[in-house]
Amino acid sequence: MLYITRRATFSAAHRLHNLKLSDKENKYIYGECNNPNGHGHNYVLEVTVRGNVPDKTGMVIDLKDLKKIITENIIEKVDHKYLNKDVDFMSDIIPTAENLVIQFWKILKKALLENNTELYELKLYETENNIVVYRGE
Amino acid sequence: MLYITRRATFSAAHRLHNLKLSDKENKYIYGECNNPNGHGHNYVLEVTVRGNVPDKTGMVIDLKDLKKIITENIIEKVDHKYLNKDVDFMSDIIPTAENLVIQFWKILKKALLENNTELYELKLYETENNIVVYRGE
Amino acid sequence: MLYITRRATFSAAHRLHNLKLSDKENKYIYGECNNPNGHGHNYVLEVTVRGNVPDKTGMVIDLKDLKKIITENIIEKVDHKYLNKDVDFMSDIIPTAENLVIQFWKILKKALLENNTELYELKLYETENNIVVYRGE
Amino acid sequence: MLYITRRATFSAAHRLHNLKLSDKENKYIYGECNNPNGHGHNYVLEVTVRGNVPDKTGMVIDLKDLKKIITENIIEKVDHKYLNKDVDFMSDIIPTAENLVIQFWKILKKALLENNTELYELKLYETENNIVVYRGE
Amino acid sequence: MLYITRRATFSAAHRLHNLKLSDKENKYIYGECNNPNGHGHNYVLEVTVRGNVPDKTGMVIDLKDLKKIITENIIEKVDHKYLNKDVDFMSDIIPTAENLVIQFWKILKKALLENNTELYELKLYETENNIVVYRGE
Amino acid sequence: MLYITRRATFSAAHRLHNLKLSDKENKYIYGECNNPNGHGHNYVLEVTVRGNVPDKTGMVIDLKDLKKIITENIIEKVDHKYLNKDVDFMSDIIPTAENLVIQFWKILKKALLENNTELYELKLYETENNIVVYRGE
Repeated sequence: MLYITRRATFSAAHRLHNLKLSDKENKYIYGECNNPNGHGHNYVLEVTVRGNVPDKTGMVIDLKDLKKIITENIIEKVDHKYLNKDVDFMSDIIPTAENLVIQFWKILKKALLENNTELYELKLYETENNIVVYRGE
Repeated sequence: MLYITRRATFSAAHRLHNLKLSDKENKYIYGECNNPNGHGHNYVLEVTVRGNVPDKTGMVIDLKDLKKIITENIIEKVDHKYLNKDVDFMSDIIPTAENLVIQFWKILKKALLENNTELYELKLYETENNIVVYRGE
Repeated sequence: MLYITRRATFSAAHRLHNLKLSDKENKYIYGECNNPNGHGHNYVLEVTVRGNVPDKTGMVIDLKDLKKIITENIIEKVDHKYLNKDVDFMSDIIPTAENLVIQFWKILKKALLENNTELYELKLYETENNIVVYRGE
Repeated sequence: MLYITRRATFSAAHRLHNLKLSDKENKYIYGECNNPNGHGHNYVLEVTVRGNVPDKTGMVIDLKDLKKIITENIIEKVDHKYLNKDVDFMSDIIPTAENLVIQFWKILKKALLENNTELYELKLYETENNIVVYRGE
Repeated sequence: MLYITRRATFSAAHRLHNLKLSDKENKYIYGECNNPNGHGHNYVLEVTVRGNVPDKTGMVIDLKDLKKIITENIIEKVDHKYLNKDVDFMSDIIPTAENLVIQFWKILKKALLENNTELYELKLYETENNIVVYRGE
Repeated sequence: MLYITRRATFSAAHRLHNLKLSDKENKYIYGECNNPNGHGHNYVLEVTVRGNVPDKTGMVIDLKDLKKIITENIIEKVDHKYLNKDVDFMSDIIPTAENLVIQFWKILKKALLENNTELYELKLYETENNIVVYRGE
């Protein structure tokens, strides 16, 4: 059993704002992240799958395939986008790093299963200091 | 003569769009960076000053002072902001990395001179792959 | 269940020396790290907490709170200090990376519990090549 | 129980090619990595051991010892080498990152046991975007 | 006048060997880099151009164009290749970092001029510790 | 004319303190860097030499020689040391990054000249945010 990680990046804007709360509450909870016009990040996403190593190829998964799955299912949907408005799977969801990674998990879990591969972990860097990890637990 | 560099970071959103051009022209020039709702980056700014080393302190400039000047004049104005709308010195200016760094230069040149310090160079990383340097030439 | 990591840094000096051993034994065990006047590092500390994501905020913990807890309980106590002499919770303890991280764990575990947050893991980089991880096991 | 990681690097060439398959199949599976004359990488290897912290030393393992074990058993065998031809423990094995790390595990597991130390994990970066982790599972 | 840098990466193998010298001399000069079967690196190439900032676009050069020029003229020629044998512009040239960067300069200088852009500097990282800079001087 | 850079690292402790000033003045000028027991850093030193590329070797300087000169003249003198007390060429000199780099310049300039090599620039990272560059101007 080995774990294979592929790293990808995207640049996006977002605003942390809960429509069900008052402006005052939003300002209190999210601070400067609640700025009405939004702000942005260079996100780094690390996708880890796991599996056995077949003798024939010596590879758990072809990294070109893994890259293609991440690009088509995630990066093309979020790169150079405003996450609150431009991304269908984030509509009605507050675009915190936590919620982003949970949505990415649902999409990648399914796309990888169709490729007979088990998703193990997602790691999302919002900045070099703020990191979220999700294992579907 | 020594060169001292202080590194600072900020996260901001922007849209590359020239109001004097048609939507079609903007889309052609800026591609995905023209996305109407904007996108964003974790910017890294390196500010380099130069000067002699006084015997008394052994420091060209007190780095606490340099940090304060950068924070108050630049970081607090652009961090967690939408550069096209929220930053007074970027109004009517297309927020490319080039234009950002030229505006930063004007502000920091003046603020550092008031502190008897010569600004030498600004280096702005928009992503780990895209970098702009300006020396006021 | 998600894992949230906040990265912090501090610069400190230390000397690896066991008062219960002879100078010769100390020199044998710690080598150049036993230098009588000490040496130092830029430490990087990654604090990982875990928890569920409440619908209201979409955040396991407010990162501003997590940053404040780390700063007040750890960074302000060890940054720009000599670990053997200036840090109360390190008195009588050999300041190896291992012992540092065990003491940090005791302090942060308690401080985070008071904030209803579960500490999951501490990762301490002494240099880019030497890293310690502790999960309270 | 603490986890100690030591980072090491080596530069090597390799060609992904399964001698039991046709050239066409190899080209299909490995793409540009099947280039007949090979290509190369700056590999980064992180070796993680775990153990308790003895009061006497405050160290799970002397990092000088850990470095020596990694250098003598792995780095000197693979650094500045062509993995397919110059490394005895890789003969007849396709030098994917997966197969490399499995062979490293066998060697380091044994060498560390002779030093009364438990190997916990190997992490091998082939590039900054492609990473393999193995825990002997 | 601004300086714009675009970063690109490639993985290649090479052998340092001067055909006009004896095997003994080659071994003496190049040491382990003379290994007959070669070794390899993840190279990082930073290409810096310079120019004025036109009001219309706010960009010295469209980074998509710069990326395309670097990819087509350099990366596609050297990535996943054995530099001594597979790269036409390196035939009969010892593939040191110095010689690589001089050949890259000739090619990029011409390709950028056809795009009305002035090449200012090339920076090539062979490893994180070994770096070459060339400005055509 | 090419520029070759070799990167090296060392870990050291220091205290910023001018013996000719009062304790109060020292505290005012250096703040927490004046802590009586000192603090420390993982320093990164980049040494850049320049020269032409001889046809015979294709190398401005043998990097093994450059590494040896840096190690013997600088790293072995400052690594795991307390700069104020343990380093002869820093006695009576306030160990700011500026003063360190000026002393390194004197030593390396001479050692490299004896090797027929021209020192061009020293770059010293005290932390990832504080950097000094000196070109002997």
